[in-house]
Amino acid sequence: PRRIEWSAVAAEKEGHKHFMHKEIHEQPRALVDTVRGRTLLEEGDVALDGLELSADEAQRISRLVIVACGTSWHAGLCGRYMMETLARLPVEVELASEFRYRDPIVDERTLCLAISQSGETADTLAAVKEAKRRGARAVSICNVVGSAIPRECSGTLYTRAGPEIGVASTKAFTTQLACLFLLAVKLGRLRGTLSMEAARSHLSALRQLPAWMEQVVRQEPAVLPVAKRCAQARDVLFLGRGSQYPVALEGALKLKEISYIHAEGYAAGEMKHGPIALVDENLPVIVLATREPAYEKTLGNMEEVRARGGQVYAVVSEGDVHAASLAQVALTVPEAPPLLAPLLSILPLQFLAYHVADLKGTDVDQPRNLAKSVTVE
Amino acid sequence: PRRIEWSAVAAEKEGHKHFMHKEIHEQPRALVDTVRGRTLLEEGDVALDGLELSADEAQRISRLVIVACGTSWHAGLCGRYMMETLARLPVEVELASEFRYRDPIVDERTLCLAISQSGETADTLAAVKEAKRRGARAVSICNVVGSAIPRECSGTLYTRAGPEIGVASTKAFTTQLACLFLLAVKLGRLRGTLSMEAARSHLSALRQLPAWMEQVVRQEPAVLPVAKRCAQARDVLFLGRGSQYPVALEGALKLKEISYIHAEGYAAGEMKHGPIALVDENLPVIVLATREPAYEKTLGNMEEVRARGGQVYAVVSEGDVHAASLAQVALTVPEAPPLLAPLLSILPLQFLAYHVADLKGTDVDQPRNLAKSVTVE
Repeated sequence: PRRIEWSAVAAEKEGHKHFMHKEIHEQPRALVDTVRGRTLLEEGDVALDGLELSADEAQRISRLVIVACGTSWHAGLCGRYMMETLARLPVEVELASEFRYRDPIVDERTLCLAISQSGETADTLAAVKEAKRRGARAVSICNVVGSAIPRECSGTLYTRAGPEIGVASTKAFTTQLACLFLLAVKLGRLRGTLSMEAARSHLSALRQLPAWMEQVVRQEPAVLPVAKRCAQARDVLFLGRGSQYPVALEGALKLKEISYIHAEGYAAGEMKHGPIALVDENLPVIVLATREPAYEKTLGNMEEVRARGGQVYAVVSEGDVHAASLAQVALTVPEAPPLLAPLLSILPLQFLAYHVADLKGTDVDQPRNLAKSVTVE
Repeated sequence: PRRIEWSAVAAEKEGHKHFMHKEIHEQPRALVDTVRGRTLLEEGDVALDGLELSADEAQRISRLVIVACGTSWHAGLCGRYMMETLARLPVEVELASEFRYRDPIVDERTLCLAISQSGETADTLAAVKEAKRRGARAVSICNVVGSAIPRECSGTLYTRAGPEIGVASTKAFTTQLACLFLLAVKLGRLRGTLSMEAARSHLSALRQLPAWMEQVVRQEPAVLPVAKRCAQARDVLFLGRGSQYPVALEGALKLKEISYIHAEGYAAGEMKHGPIALVDENLPVIVLATREPAYEKTLGNMEEVRARGGQVYAVVSEGDVHAASLAQVALTVPEAPPLLAPLLSILPLQFLAYHVADLKGTDVDQPRNLAKSVTVE
């Protein structure tokens, strides 16, 4: 029998209209839980309870293959930047449904990392088995203790997000990002690519995040004008670069899942290779324009959209008057280091999807055609 | 001064209403040109004029990084399957606009392959320079002889597609696929992962392709009922698995570029993780359902779309009555080996985009907001 770690009370709405709304608000607290006891600030190190890695093993790994579906796949795409930057490890992020039916290149020097909120996602579980069959070590980042994927893996870092009831994943996503960051710092230390000083500074920033997230959560009302506009749209485009590119994908997925608006995320640099043809006054374009490498290029994209009659809404860094001036409405977030920026910039997009769906009167917590865990293939 | 290799006459429409239509029809002939003199059937080998690779070098490569934008990026995604399958080489396919601003993991054992029709794509050129700066050898697949990217690379395999005038790329895409296939066979032979016999059989299939393509081109009128339906839609979904997943992305991009319909491509296995929420009677779903690994799963996806009131149109293998029975209209293509199947299945999707745009009366060869080569950042 599987032990249920969460009380029935925790699964109540606690005054929120929907579970999704409650879960968006829970993220600062969830992040505190995820990080608790895992950052060793003094030593510039990380304690990964449940996911042991020796220095030998970390140095022997030649590639990391992340397998996941949906929102967890987006978390993996953010994780790729973290692992490459901090641990200088080549990373491939694979859709589990694609990986399992290919003839993937995996061997004993490959570390396979599965990401799944439920730990029961059928394609991800099958991908883990396939990677193991080919000699890889498999580990996972999951939310549900004792679920199928952790049982199949030799190590699991739990997200400790608590029960997630809304079908559209929110706090599972941000806590997955925090776990990926912890793992990246650990691998960086073990592989010798990250100094103790640098690790300390990264871990301090991570510990700062819950307070920053609180700040963004308090700005919920700022998204309402954007939500009103998007609720009238049939199509919405999300653009981002670098670590904000996966956030654009995830923001689009949230809106798609619960409002049934056809939202699509794109790398901002690809805009001129196709999606700009869609731009006219009927297409809201949401741009992730926080201060980051290549951020000026993103501002250029905003100007191009405006020049073609498009409406631009943007997520910008606090105090960035210039970026804000290029958008009809600018939603601000505190300026975080680029690798952690997705944990902040996704919040206004979650609120946006939520309020659009609420305005449209869709079933926010149980959107049509979707299941919380895709446990069949 | 750069020598122009194409005559003015070759750039005329020759009775076609649009250049794009002419260029779709030219593909079987273009493919003959691409392959000519490069397949050594007897020896089970490939002659890559302009892109010399020694056995030593091929064995020393630990990773292939493909950099490209737009349609060329989709060709790269198909190329990944070819390289992994035939040469057992880990491949990462990167958006050039993302690659150049990251801190990518590239060293002397990395081969960087740039793909660009014009050879002038600014982001791809910058990505090549970045890869070289980090010690990688850079080679390219381009169409325009003597353009900037080939000049920056130590080897180039030209696609020989002839001038492509339509902004929406068609024959450049299929000839890029043929070049990628030739390169994959060559790498497979040099790395010892592909026997002479197997190489012979792959090369024979490649030489068979132009005749198969002719067959598909002759079936152009079959797409008209689907085009009429899609011309009334605001949104269209394209689904595919494995080597047909990039084809779904490319089919969606064609439609988006010239008809301004919001088309989106998705890996079929991801459907349940989000896009299925969009499915209702107003959303045409185009499914690539040719006979391939995991093909039964794709048929399952078709049934799920139908069960939710969606309209399914499919590209199926000739004679596959079962798959055809699941679609409102089935477009057939000859059954090719999976790695080459994209060269056939993209043809009906190119025709579809063309006829939808023609029905809508958009400027097919010069769609709004788009340029043929994106030579600025």
